[in-house]
Parts: sequence; structure tokens; C-alpha cells
Amino acid sequence: MALSITLGARTWIERLWSGIADRGRPYADVPGAATPPLDRARLLAMALLSERGEASGAAVARELLQVLGTLEAGDRAAFRHFLAGNFLPDQESLRAAAEAYLAEPSAERAMALFECAEPPRQELLRRMNMAPGGTAALVALRTELLAGLKREPALKPLDSDLRHLFTSWFNRGFLELRRIDWDTPAAILEKLIRYEAVHEIQGWEDLRRRLAPDRRCFGFFHRALPGEPLIFVEVALVKGLAGAIQPLLALSRDPAPQPPAGFDTAIFYSISNCQEGLRGISFGNFLIKQVVEELKADLPGLKHFSTLSPVPGFRRWLKRRLDRDGQALTPEERGALAALLPPAQEESVAEAGPLSTAALLEQVAEGEWWRDPAREAALRGPLMRLAAEYLTRPNTGMGNIDPVARFHLGNGARLERINWLGNTAPRGLEESHGVMVNYLYDPDSIEANHEAFTRSGTVARSAAVEAMLAQPRLPAPATGGARARLPRLLGGSGGAPEPAAPAPPPRENAAS
Amino acid sequence: MALSITLGARTWIERLWSGIADRGRPYADVPGAATPPLDRARLLAMALLSERGEASGAAVARELLQVLGTLEAGDRAAFRHFLAGNFLPDQESLRAAAEAYLAEPSAERAMALFECAEPPRQELLRRMNMAPGGTAALVALRTELLAGLKREPALKPLDSDLRHLFTSWFNRGFLELRRIDWDTPAAILEKLIRYEAVHEIQGWEDLRRRLAPDRRCFGFFHRALPGEPLIFVEVALVKGLAGAIQPLLALSRDPAPQPPAGFDTAIFYSISNCQEGLRGISFGNFLIKQVVEELKADLPGLKHFSTLSPVPGFRRWLKRRLDRDGQALTPEERGALAALLPPAQEESVAEAGPLSTAALLEQVAEGEWWRDPAREAALRGPLMRLAAEYLTRPNTGMGNIDPVARFHLGNGARLERINWLGNTAPRGLEESHGVMVNYLYDPDSIEANHEAFTRSGTVARSAAVEAMLAQPRLPAPATGGARARLPRLLGGSGGAPEPAAPAPPPRENAAS
Amino acid sequence: MALSITLGARTWIERLWSGIADRGRPYADVPGAATPPLDRARLLAMALLSERGEASGAAVARELLQVLGTLEAGDRAAFRHFLAGNFLPDQESLRAAAEAYLAEPSAERAMALFECAEPPRQELLRRMNMAPGGTAALVALRTELLAGLKREPALKPLDSDLRHLFTSWFNRGFLELRRIDWDTPAAILEKLIRYEAVHEIQGWEDLRRRLAPDRRCFGFFHRALPGEPLIFVEVALVKGLAGAIQPLLALSRDPAPQPPAGFDTAIFYSISNCQEGLRGISFGNFLIKQVVEELKADLPGLKHFSTLSPVPGFRRWLKRRLDRDGQALTPEERGALAALLPPAQEESVAEAGPLSTAALLEQVAEGEWWRDPAREAALRGPLMRLAAEYLTRPNTGMGNIDPVARFHLGNGARLERINWLGNTAPRGLEESHGVMVNYLYDPDSIEANHEAFTRSGTVARSAAVEAMLAQPRLPAPATGGARARLPRLLGGSGGAPEPAAPAPPPRENAAS
Amino acid sequence: MALSITLGARTWIERLWSGIADRGRPYADVPGAATPPLDRARLLAMALLSERGEASGAAVARELLQVLGTLEAGDRAAFRHFLAGNFLPDQESLRAAAEAYLAEPSAERAMALFECAEPPRQELLRRMNMAPGGTAALVALRTELLAGLKREPALKPLDSDLRHLFTSWFNRGFLELRRIDWDTPAAILEKLIRYEAVHEIQGWEDLRRRLAPDRRCFGFFHRALPGEPLIFVEVALVKGLAGAIQPLLALSRDPAPQPPAGFDTAIFYSISNCQEGLRGISFGNFLIKQVVEELKADLPGLKHFSTLSPVPGFRRWLKRRLDRDGQALTPEERGALAALLPPAQEESVAEAGPLSTAALLEQVAEGEWWRDPAREAALRGPLMRLAAEYLTRPNTGMGNIDPVARFHLGNGARLERINWLGNTAPRGLEESHGVMVNYLYDPDSIEANHEAFTRSGTVARSAAVEAMLAQPRLPAPATGGARARLPRLLGGSGGAPEPAAPAPPPRENAAS
Repeated sequence: MALSITLGARTWIERLWSGIADRGRPYADVPGAATPPLDRARLLAMALLSERGEASGAAVARELLQVLGTLEAGDRAAFRHFLAGNFLPDQESLRAAAEAYLAEPSAERAMALFECAEPPRQELLRRMNMAPGGTAALVALRTELLAGLKREPALKPLDSDLRHLFTSWFNRGFLELRRIDWDTPAAILEKLIRYEAVHEIQGWEDLRRRLAPDRRCFGFFHRALPGEPLIFVEVALVKGLAGAIQPLLALSRDPAPQPPAGFDTAIFYSISNCQEGLRGISFGNFLIKQVVEELKADLPGLKHFSTLSPVPGFRRWLKRRLDRDGQALTPEERGALAALLPPAQEESVAEAGPLSTAALLEQVAEGEWWRDPAREAALRGPLMRLAAEYLTRPNTGMGNIDPVARFHLGNGARLERINWLGNTAPRGLEESHGVMVNYLYDPDSIEANHEAFTRSGTVARSAAVEAMLAQPRLPAPATGGARARLPRLLGGSGGAPEPAAPAPPPRENAAS
Repeated sequence: MALSITLGARTWIERLWSGIADRGRPYADVPGAATPPLDRARLLAMALLSERGEASGAAVARELLQVLGTLEAGDRAAFRHFLAGNFLPDQESLRAAAEAYLAEPSAERAMALFECAEPPRQELLRRMNMAPGGTAALVALRTELLAGLKREPALKPLDSDLRHLFTSWFNRGFLELRRIDWDTPAAILEKLIRYEAVHEIQGWEDLRRRLAPDRRCFGFFHRALPGEPLIFVEVALVKGLAGAIQPLLALSRDPAPQPPAGFDTAIFYSISNCQEGLRGISFGNFLIKQVVEELKADLPGLKHFSTLSPVPGFRRWLKRRLDRDGQALTPEERGALAALLPPAQEESVAEAGPLSTAALLEQVAEGEWWRDPAREAALRGPLMRLAAEYLTRPNTGMGNIDPVARFHLGNGARLERINWLGNTAPRGLEESHGVMVNYLYDPDSIEANHEAFTRSGTVARSAAVEAMLAQPRLPAPATGGARARLPRLLGGSGGAPEPAAPAPPPRENAAS
Repeated sequence: MALSITLGARTWIERLWSGIADRGRPYADVPGAATPPLDRARLLAMALLSERGEASGAAVARELLQVLGTLEAGDRAAFRHFLAGNFLPDQESLRAAAEAYLAEPSAERAMALFECAEPPRQELLRRMNMAPGGTAALVALRTELLAGLKREPALKPLDSDLRHLFTSWFNRGFLELRRIDWDTPAAILEKLIRYEAVHEIQGWEDLRRRLAPDRRCFGFFHRALPGEPLIFVEVALVKGLAGAIQPLLALSRDPAPQPPAGFDTAIFYSISNCQEGLRGISFGNFLIKQVVEELKADLPGLKHFSTLSPVPGFRRWLKRRLDRDGQALTPEERGALAALLPPAQEESVAEAGPLSTAALLEQVAEGEWWRDPAREAALRGPLMRLAAEYLTRPNTGMGNIDPVARFHLGNGARLERINWLGNTAPRGLEESHGVMVNYLYDPDSIEANHEAFTRSGTVARSAAVEAMLAQPRLPAPATGGARARLPRLLGGSGGAPEPAAPAPPPRENAAS
Repeated sequence: MALSITLGARTWIERLWSGIADRGRPYADVPGAATPPLDRARLLAMALLSERGEASGAAVARELLQVLGTLEAGDRAAFRHFLAGNFLPDQESLRAAAEAYLAEPSAERAMALFECAEPPRQELLRRMNMAPGGTAALVALRTELLAGLKREPALKPLDSDLRHLFTSWFNRGFLELRRIDWDTPAAILEKLIRYEAVHEIQGWEDLRRRLAPDRRCFGFFHRALPGEPLIFVEVALVKGLAGAIQPLLALSRDPAPQPPAGFDTAIFYSISNCQEGLRGISFGNFLIKQVVEELKADLPGLKHFSTLSPVPGFRRWLKRRLDRDGQALTPEERGALAALLPPAQEESVAEAGPLSTAALLEQVAEGEWWRDPAREAALRGPLMRLAAEYLTRPNTGMGNIDPVARFHLGNGARLERINWLGNTAPRGLEESHGVMVNYLYDPDSIEANHEAFTRSGTVARSAAVEAMLAQPRLPAPATGGARARLPRLLGGSGGAPEPAAPAPPPRENAAS
């Protein structure tokens, strides 16, 4: 295989070389200091795949990386395009292999076809990786690439190759799980502050709180990216399921707070990916499960392992839901909400026609509504019921599901509890009217949950969540495709079938 | 890409599952303890690629590894065939992708073809790697596989996939260079004793000598194979090029011998690969070059970096050479050798016809001939000249070159010196009449040497070696294809062109 | 020896035991949980010196430490008095040994006397040290003890024993020098913030600046106090002697500032002791000298090693100096200062009589005077000259010397340069009108400097400092005891000989 | 205190200096290269206590150590005498302090006396310790010193000071317990081979066996002696008390033998001190107890912790016992032994008079008697009974007890079981007719056992051992001082009271 790749690469490269040589740069001074950096980078990349690369690959790779480090943004972009547009499989060989396979689709010919089809670019990237810092440079390359990928589809092959290599290199078997605590080097800790994506860390005092004795933090690391967490998770040791995030984040007067007496639950309250260049390489699933194992071994008193997670898509979904189905709220619920609006406002609104249910709810749920007992009481019932509806809709694989839910349910967790006023920070209110969710990781049911979710879209849920769905309400909201459409009584906007919410990007980056 | 692989795998696996299910093993109890181990292994391998594998890959992989650990040799062989014969790319998808490519050979379609052609087996192997000890298990799998690969070509696809993965995983960028000395854990040191392939280590005393202060030893390690050197090299610090191995190996009365005053040369006198299962994954090249860098930084007084290497193919080649070309020795040389045989022997030989040159030389070079000044003197001239001839023949890429020479010349080293009586141990005499070689690693010429060797087969050599070739001798032996064939004068065996020596397996395992 | 100590201890302890037993606590339940903690601590201390302590010293010590950890402040004080007032040498044995020595003062009898005189308390403290955390507990014990030692002379014997043990335990040979940087665990770094005694660290950003690539930080650690620096020093890599502290402390926009090109000097700008309980155990001397060695080896370009140090006693001394010697300033100097005061002020002052030189200078040197070119110019000459005078007065061993000067001069450093406006922070102005000093550590002259300083009180100084002293001024200030006293011309307060300044406590804590 | 020592030292040293200076060596060139090494060592030692030592103690100490490293044996001896004979407390100060104390024996004066009595030599040794390798050099100094201490009592003060310092420095709180296994550096492992004092390690294979998974090995280390174990213990994990050593030492075919199923007992079968220079500093006691804690935590299945120990003094004691008390054996026992001798031998013996019981037993117990069932049967009863007698004799503190027994009983262990044919190796037969002993460490009774042993000499023993003593035998041997002496019936050699066996040196070095 190595041979065919090399030959393919050589053929192709010879053409490239000669093209460049025609422009007057003789072979010998390829890496000459006078060559403009971008050209030097290109030539070094070619050299890396040539005999020179075989003889002293690590040295050439190091030189290439140094040059890349000096390129301006524009040149870096040009280099990405150079990589993406060249280093393709040899066309003739591939054509021959494809024809051979079609003539006789044997295992051997499939294998030969695979080997011919592998782009020499992968070998080039592997050789770039030989230099010290190579992996970090390639991850950085993909970070920049991803930022513009939508605008530049021509880079897709390069992204595809990088992703293919990273999947192999960052295999679970090569990751090291490390506990992170106050004895961890500051150079790593400051990265937690930078990378935390769910509940921002406000500084070193806040960080210290999250690494106190009643907390745990673990991350995956890879030997080739020393000092760089790939992903990390923050855990609180508590008694019973924690339903609200603010108490967990609050600073403590005690400089070293201990877990509460009789603590039995580990709450995974934040999980953050750190390396944008590794997007799409899955770590979160493994991390949570291994941390569960570690905690069990270390703290035998722990009985429950659960997240305390945001519901980032709820409020957006809810608006559409209410717009389309006036009966989403019962008349009593709607009435209770309407009663909370000041008469003046009601009036001015009345002039503009009847207030839609969605708008009504939005108006009630403004500002710090949750500090007002009347509003809080009026909103609680409908919001909790609709959150349960939102979160238990079957997974059709087409993105109609909350991204955090999809992550945890896809991992085999169970929708355990929906928490009222779980997150009263602006972001929590903004995203989900403050609702938070516990996804429970129960080792005994993880596989079955995952399989049911993947195969038939079924959302595993606790009896309590089930009960929220079954609340007597007339007419009951039917979930799933079999739901009967009923005439809207009040402010409804029509009976069109609800479309799948536009899928938010798979945000593992802020997964819990 | 992940999607297409998964789908392909799924289709294929569904058929496998159902076949097995038909035989009465319902899905649910797949990993049941009552299932025979081989079947359990097969089912777990399938499960690993299924949704179960997605949900709890590490757990399934761990279970599979445990089962594999209990299999008898026959079952292990069967499992290898199971892996090699299944987990192929989905035939329909691949056919479609091949046709699409042929219809329009664009970069996108080449990429799609590559992705379809990747056998799901690679994903399976990657998932097996997720369990603790996974990498070691896969290396062991390939070790067993290679032992029978010639007899069992059906295993080639599995070998090909393993090699593809290992090439990626054991990329230079992921290897850790470690110094090995007397402070290294005994568990690693005993592996040096086991793996040393060039000059056997006789026990702990011998080992201690090789790790003394006037020696250096370095190895490559990989995080996923803790405690296992992949390759290691032994170095002696000396003054001037060392030409004989016995003084380097001799035990010392001094428990901690220091380098000689004014030492200026690092002699790489042994390099051994340790992991048969990683055969074909190149480490030696990188190791030597990085150790040169390390030594330079650590010991600025070092000026020369050279091997002291065996010539394993010389004696075998020499016999054929003499058989085919009676003039390989001058009449004077032949006469001098003949004069050393006892008359009786000569006589009995005479009855059987004239003694061939090859046989004559072999008879003189018997036993401890090198202790006999007359024999030593008579053999020295012709053997040294012919060794130079042997080692400088151009590399045709078809295995006609000494394997150790090919390794170092291919790395860009230069044939620096040929040493008479370099190794008088039985193996040295057996392989090369005691001749040893210094290959010099000169950073400034490595790339040029490598390129000349790879492109045109030219062997870089010192002036001294060149001079050995130029010795006035009539008729001069022509090297290479243009060599004139001359009538044999004495005991020649005919004029057939010399065939390439049957290539010994590329023995990096005993490279220096 | 061990025997005699033990016997002595036993005799004494038996009396103690019986006294306590009389009060109704039988031996068996000595460490009973019902016993009040202070009594438990006392009984455990006794048990530790008894056979129980021999059998299971570590266990008893651990128990004792746990009890001590629970004591209230009052009980802890009582326990200190218990330790200090008991565990004395056996009176009869000591008397006998003293008499024997006086009868025949042989080496053997001196040795026997020494052994009898060692208080069993030392053995008790050594046994307390056997428990995990024992050393830390003993250091904490002394910290509390020192806080009240002046009020409670009865504790002196306990302090003496602790200091004796610590001197032995914290011997230089048992200390580990460690570099501290941004890769150091946060748990240690936060202690730098807490312990920094010279130039306060304002938080993590400030700390990060001090650990940047153009800085070095080293500390001594001891195995028995893990995670606790004993002392640390902060160093800046600069070009030429740095004369002002503000530029060194200023934050940098560059997240990783490198040393300036051609840097040749290491400036020790802060050295802080961390453990109050180790007061009087000398580390600073060793630390500076070893850091010099480390830096030399690591950065061969460094040529000079110097402090940038405060002069904490200058301003106080100056006031007295001016009060006592009206001629300390020349008439021109005094006139220049007086000209700077606003007329009104001068007037009101005039009513109260002529302004003393000291008061005049203080009034000119108020607020941010150094931003006013006129004031700055008028003050510079006299202050610099008098600072030189202050710093070069011979050391009489009676505390008349600046404590920081004494520390560095006693270490063998040389008074290299006096810096005008070296520290314009409030503390710098308050202590020394902003003057700072470079003490130079020149390995070649350290011993001679030290010896001259220790034997004859001579202050090693550079030619530049010498020149400042020699400024033509009439009448010239004579240094040393032979100084002639001259009539005061202006505002002088009389000719009494200058008394030694009351010695400030030997503040190594803020040494540089 | 530091002050008074220094002053004392200075006075004394001044005299020394001047003595040497008189001989023509001016102060300035004290450490001159031309000075003979021994004189250089002496002068450097003095310099170390002088101001030079204060200024650059570590440097002077380093120089002194280097010189010491070059001294011949004779010069080293002379240097030891130099140390021992000088550096005494200042006679005048000490006399004054002694008189002051006698006049008023207050705590303050006792403290002052102690401080005056401390020989400056201790400060000198502490300063020698400041250099790298200082501790090792001082331990080596004492090793050599101890070898000749009996012949050279003048060295006692030096030994006393070293021991005093080592006791403080090697306090339990400063020792690090480390597990030693096959992953330990070879440089440490080879020291186990060298230092093992109980059951010789035959080489690396044997060592590997002792570090296998069914074994444990732990040692104490000290930071200042890196790579040097101070003491180590070897442990076997077994089921039930192991009674014989050969099965534990036997090599195993299994390269990694696991503990037996249901293992519940840790057998401490060898404990060896490593540093002769630390003789008398107790480690064994702490080591065993901490290893018990470690094993408990690591292997909760362990229920029993016991030694399998030699009885080095039994055979020697037994001879004397039989010589003095003809009735030590019953007539039946004696008859049974006599019947085993060949008639011829009996006869020749008869001529020489009746064979003594001691001689009879020795003749029967010759060679590999234990392979002969008849001899083995005849010897078992009397030897086991007398071994029990030997081991349970009360401890009078005067060395009449087996040294290994004294070590373990003194640690609070219980004499649990006496094992027949416990060690059939030559040394075992030679020392104790093959008898071995289990001393049980039962945490709950350790303190009481120790106290009873120390206070009243009582040997804690199991019921089984007690029963062996109570065997009906006429006349019964009385244990302890109250034992009645009876007339000898057969071959007795008289009724003199049995003297205490000459105490073997307290051999912790081969304790178990």
C-alpha cells in the first residue's frame, strides 16, 4: 500500500515540481530563505512527500511548521487551499482499481481500491505530525478551516482527511483521564476558565470553588497536546438530585467546603469541549461514562449519577408551538396569565387585536418575573407541562430535538426530572424560561436506552416525567405523528402540522 | 463519512446477526455466559459495531478483549479468519461510488469513493482499541497473524487494515524517546534482554555493562503500550571509529566505566525492534536520527555518529560469486589459499577433481582460522576487496543488497569503513567471515545520500572504501549490469548471469 | 544515651502520671473519649514518652495531633505551657553529671553531661513528628508560641527546643530547590500571593507576570511540608542593573514577555520567608547562592547577580540624624529646600521658631514630591549622600544597621549602587524617600566580604558608592567612631553622639 | 544558643588555627592545593565552623567532601580521630554553666547548661551535611567508624554525635515508605540483592520471584539518600500461617504467580537493614507496622500479619542447656535418640565414657537427618518442647533472649507458633535445628504485649505455645527464675545455674 501511495504521490508531485521549477526555482534551493514564505510552505509540503521526506521527514516537517507559524492569515488560507486542491489520489490508478473492482467485486479488489483511493494528503498530514508540535499545528489548521468551511466548500476534502486522522489518533484508547483540582498546574487551570462553555467561570476565586473538596473535575488529555485539556466535566457531590444551578455555583465562605453528610449523588453540571479543531470527534460520551466509573470506585457512597443540564431550544420551540396551537394552553392557564398584565397594557394591546398566546406568555415572562409569586405561579404549570412535551418528542434523527437532550439521550441517559427555576441567570431565562433538566446515567439501562433512542427515537423517561405528560387537560396534547389537530379556541394561529425545529448545530461544546 | 460507514456496517451486520439468530441464539442473550467463547467473541465483535458499541463501546470492547484472552489457539485462528472474511465495505454502496467516480472523476467523488471503500473492519479495530489494553491486544493479534500469513493469504486484508491503523497510531509524533539506563525499571530492562536481536545479552551482568556510564541506550515508547519498548538502540562512547565488536561487549572490572578521555564518537552497535506485531512500521530511521540529536545536545564533544554493523548476507553472496566467477580471486590469491591446505587434503581433493575457488576459500576459512596468522593474512586481501564489492553494488530495489546495508544506506548513511575481524563470534564468522561495517550518519549529507540511493541506487561511500574497489587487479571485477563475463579459468561453474540473491526478509529487527 | 533520656523521662513522668491518676483517672482509660481534650492532649503527650510511645509511637502521635487540632485557643496556650513547664531533664542525674564534670572535665564526662542535659521534651517533640503532618503541626505550634513569646518568657525553653530541632531538620541538605512557574500547582502559587512580603502580589494576573518567561522564581521546599514553600525569591532577567522597581512590577500587554535581547543580569527583587514558625532558621543565604548557581548553569549569558532592595530604616534614621546634626545638610542644600516652601507656610512656621532641618526636609518630601522637578532636584543630592552614609556605617553587631543591608552584607554581598526614585510606591516613600539599593553577589568576593563584615564591621562597597561618600562637602562627614563632631550652624539640635538606632527586628521576611 | 555555640567554637578553633598557622601555613591559603589532603580536610573542617563556613557553608562543605573522597584509609582514620578529639564544648563556659546549675537548678539554667554542653562538633557535622551527598558521606563516615569502635573507644564521642544527629534526621516523619516491585529501577533492586541479610537472594531470577504478584516488598527511603533503601521487608501472601520458608523461596514456573485463592495472611519472611552507618537508629518497628497498615488498606481480605522468623540462638543455647541439665530430656527421649546411633559408633563412644545428652543429640542431628523419618520423629518432641522453653524465658533485659525474638516481642508481637522443619537450609539447621517461629502482629494487643515485655519481661504467647510448655513430663521443666534445679540422671554435667547466654549483638540487620 505504502508503495502505491508513494508512486501515486510521486507522479502527481513530479508534475507540481516541474510546474514550479518552470517558474525558475530550481530543485536544489527549494527551501531557500529567499523564497516567499507561502511558496516555501508549498515546496516543503511537497518535499515532505518526496524522498527528502523519507530521509528526514521529522526535520522537513519541523521546517514546514516553522514556516507555517510565520504566515499571515491570507497566506495560511492559501496554504489550506493548496492542501485541499492537491495531493489527490492518482487518477489513472484509481480509475483502474475502480474498474477492476466493478469487474470482480472481490475482497482483495475492494482492498486495492481502498488503498488507491486514499489521498496522498493523508500521508502528508501524517508526516507533518512527526515534528514536535505537529499535532497541535494540525488541530489549529482545522480550527481555522472550520471557521470558514461553509463559505469554502472546496476545503471539504482537507477537513475530511483531518477528521479521519483525528478520529484515529484521538481514539479513546489514547486518551488519558486526569483529575483536575487545585493541585493542577495553573497553566492548565487557566484553560478551564477560557474553555468553560456552559456556566462561565468568573475568575480564580470562582475556579477555586469549582475545584473544592465537594466538587470533582476530570478531563481527557492526549500526549501530543500536553497541557491542553480536550474536554472536561465539572461535578458536584450532593445529597439527592440537584435541581437548580445557582446554589452549585455560589461562592462559599468556607475555603475548603466538604461534601454534605450522606452525599449520594454526583451532579454533572458542566461539560465543555476545548478544542474547536477536534469538532466532531466524540469525547463527551466516553468522558461521562469513565468519570462515573472513577467516582464509583473512589466514593462508594455515590448511588446516582446525573446531569443538571440546560434546555437551550425550549423557549424558541415554545414560541412556535404556541403560535401554531392556540390550545397549547388551557383557557384557565391563558386566563391566569392575562390577569397578570396591567390593564393599561391589556388595553393598548386590545386595540391591536387579541394578544396571541405566545405573546401573552412572553409578556408575563419578562424580566425577573420569577421573583413575583403571582407570575411564577401562573407560569409554572403550563411551562413545566410544555417542557415535558418538548423534551419527550420522539427523535426522528432530523434535528427536531433539543441538542443537549440529543447528546445525553443518545448516550443512553434517561430524562429523569424537569426542574422549575433551575437556572435564573439571564442565559437560563433567555433559553428556557429557567427550566433545567436532570439526565440520569444509570449503567444498567444505558444500552437499552441508547438503542431505543437510536432505533425508534423513543426518549427514556422517569415515571415523574411521564406523569407530567399525562396531566388531565382537555383536549390533551397528543405527542408524535398521531396527534389529532383541533380547532384553536383562542389566539391560535392555525392547524398546520408543526415542522421540525431548525436543528441547532450539534453543540457538544456546551453539552450538559 | 461516519454515517456511510455505519450504514454500510449495519446492513452487513444485520445479515450476520440474522444468520446467527437463525441458529437459535436470540439477540438478547448475545453475550450470554453459556455461549461458546469463540461465538461470544464473534457476537461481541458484531455488537461493537452496532448501536450497543456506540452506547458503550469501551465496555463492549473490554468484554471482547477478555473473551479473546481466554481463547485457545485454534479459536484465535478462527477469530482472525472471522475478522478477515467479514466486515467488508458494503458492496452496493461501493459499486455505486466506483461507478460514480468513473462517470466523473472529481475530487469529491474520489473522496466519496475512499470513504465507501474503507472496510468497516477498520472501525471495528478502532473500537477494540478503546478498551484498556486494546492496543496491546491488537499488536498481539497481528503478531500471531504474521506468523502464518504466508500460508493463509485470506488473512491479508486483516493484516492490511492493522498495518494501516498502526502506521497512523504509531506515527513518530506520538512516540516518546526515553533514555534507558540502570535506573530504568527492571520490568523494562528484562525486555532488552529478551528483545536484543543483534548481540545477545547474556544476563543482568551483561546488561549492566551495556548501560554503564560509557554507554547510552535509548528506546521509543508509546503511551498505549506502557512498559514496552518499541525499538531500542545501544550506543558506545569511544574515541575514533570502533572497528570491532568484541571489545565493546567485553565485561569490565570497573563497575561504572567512564567514557575514554577525549571521546568523540558515538558508535551505534545494536538496534533491535521489539514488537513483531509492528513489523513494517518504521521506527529505526527516526530513532537513530533523534538519538544523534540527543547525544549532540547532551555531549557536545561528540563529532562522529556511526554504526558498527554486521554484514549478514556477505558469506552467502560470496559463495555464489566465487562459484560463478573463477576470476573473482587473482591466481596469486588462489595460490596463497591453496598453499594453506594440508597436502593429504589437497590430494584427496585432487582425486575428486580441482577444488572450486568457493570450496577452497571455505576450507581455509574454517574454525578459528583468524587465530592462525598465515590463514588470516591470506584471506584478508580477497575478503576485504570482495566485501567492498558486495556492499557497493548499486541498489536495484529488488533485494540484491545486504539488508542491513539497505536499512542504513536507505536512511542516508554512508558506507564509511569495512572492518577486518570486526566480529569473531560464531555468528559473525558464519555470516560474513567476521567482517563488520561502519555506516556513518553525517547530518549534512543524509538527504543527498538517501536521495541518490533511492533514485539511482548509488551507494554513498568514503574515499577509503572507494580505494578498496580501485585496487589494481586483472581482470578487474566490473560492478553492475555492464559487467563483462569472462571464461572461468579454474573451477568456475559457468557463465550464467548472476541472479539477485534471494532477498532476505527486510531484517530491521537486527539492523545495525 | 537513649537509655538515660528514657529513664530520666520515666522518673519524671511517673510522678506526673500518679498526680493525674490521684485525681481519679485510672491509667487504662488515659485516652478515653470522655476526658476533656486538653487533658487528653496532656496524657497522650506523656504516653508518647512512655512504653506505649515506644510500642506504637506513630499511632499515639497521630492521636495527639488529632486532639491538638480540636483544641480551642485557650487550651492550646495551656498545652504550650504544659510542654514548656514539664519534660525537663531529670534533676538528680543532671546534678550528678554536672558534679562529675566539674570534678574531672574530660571529653567523656562532657558528653555524658550533654546527654543528661537534653530535655526529654526534645524526644517528645521528635516523637510527635512521627505522625503524618507532624512537622507541620510543630511548625504551627511554634508560630503561635512566637506570637506571645515576649509576654510569656516561660515558653522560652519550648521555643529553644523547637528551634534546636528545626535547625537540625531543616538543614540545607534536606531542602529541595524548586523552580516555580506557571506550570506549578495553583495550590502552591496561591501561597506566593499570600506570603509575598516585599512587593505585594495583587492577584493572579500580577502573579502570572512575575512568572513570565523573563522572570524566574525559586523556592525551598521540605518533604515533610509538602506544598509549602519555606522561602522564595523572585528574579527579573534584564540588561544592566535595574535601579527602579516599578518597571519590573508593571503588567505587560505581552502574555509571555521574553527577556530583553542581550540580557546579562539577574535582579533578585523580592525574597520572602513563608513560615513564621521557622523564624530564625536561615534559608535566605543559601537560597540566593544556589539560585545564582542554577541561573548560571541555565543561562550562561548572565554576568551579574544583584538584588534590588528596599532600605527600610533610612527615613527613620535620617530624621534622627538631622535632628542631631544641623550640619548634615550644607547651607546651600538647606537653602534650596527652604526655597520650595510656600511663603505662607514659611511664615507660619517662622512664628513657631526656625524650622528644624529634619522638619524642613519632611515638609518638602511630602506627597508626590517626586513628580515636581524642583523638589526632586533639591532633594536628590542630600538624600543620596546621606543614604550612602547610612548604608556604609560600620556594623557594630548591635543593630545599628539597616536590616536588609545586614542580611545581604552578612551574606557577603557588596553595596553596589544606590538608586534614586527606585520605589515611588507609598511604602517606598514612607520607608526611604524612594531610595533603593543594589546589593551585588559576586561569587569571587563573597567570602572576603562576609568575613570583613563579620569581623570588623566593614561594609563592602563599589567605587561608585565610595565616591558618593567622598563628595566634597565642608565639613566632610567622617564615618565610623572617629568622626569629629562639629558645631551645628543651622537648626542643629546638639552635639550628643549619635546613638545606635533601635534595632528593627531582623526582618528576613522582607529581606531584599 | 547558636551564639554561644559559635563563640565556644570560635575560641576553641582559634587555638587550633594558631597551632596550625605556627607550623607555617598562613590562613589565606588554607585550602591550597599543595596542602596534603589530610591537612586540607582538617583545615576545611575548621573553616566550616568559622566565618567562612557561615558565608559559604555549602561550598566549603562540598570542598571538604571532595577531599574526604580522595583520602586513603589511614588518612580517613586520622580524620575521624581529629573529629573525635576536637570540637569539644568550651571548657570554661561549660564549667560556668555547670556551676550555675548546681547553684540553682532552674529550668533556665538547665537549658543554658544543655546549650553549653552541646559539642560544636554537632554543628560541624550539620554543616557538612549541607553539601550535596553530605548525608551519604556522614553515614559512610559512621560505617567506617563502627567497624573499629571497639578497638578505638576514643571515637565514641564522634559516634555519639553522629547517632544523635541521625536519630533526629531519620525521624519516622521524614521517611518515605515505598513499595518495591519489578517496576522499581534496577539500581535499587540490585541493592536488595546486596543487602538481603536473612535469606540470601541468589540472583535476578530469585529476586524476580520475591517481587511477584503474590509477594510484597516495602522499604523506607530518605530524601537525602536517593536510591538507597534504609530497610526493607519481604512479604508473602498466603492462606493460613506459613510454617516453612523453603516453599516461600522456591522459584515458580509461573512467571507471574498470583496469591492463592482465599489468601488471608501476610507473612513477613525477611527484614533487612541496609545501612550499617545507621545502626541503632530504629526502623524495623515502624516499617512492619506501617506495612501492616498499607496491606490492610490495599488488600482488605488480609486477616493475619505474622512473621516467619529464624531462631538464631536456639542451638547454641540448647547445647548449654543439655550440658547443664541431664534431665532436660526424658529417659525415653534420650533412649530413642541413643537407639538411632549405629552400634559401632555407640561402642567407640562407650569406650570414651557415657555420651553426654548434648553430644548425643548433636550426633543424631547431623547432616540431612530430617530426611530420615526415624531421626526426625525422635528429635521432634524434645526439640520443639525445648524451643518453646527457650523462646518463652522471661526477658531480663540482659541479653538472655534470642535476638530476633527480642526484636519482635519488643515490638509488641506475640509468639504464635513454633514450626518444625521450618528451615532445612544449612543455616537454618546450623542455627536452630531447622526450627522457625511465627511472631504475630495483632494491632489490638501490640501495646499491651510491648508493655508487659518491657516492664516485666513477660513473653506474650499463643495458647498453642503455652500448651507445648505444659506437656506432661517428669520432672517438668520450670520456666523462669523459680525453676528448681534437679540432679542429673544421665550424662549431666552438673547443677550449676544456667548462665545467660552471651548476648549476640542486637541483630536487627537480620531481624525476622
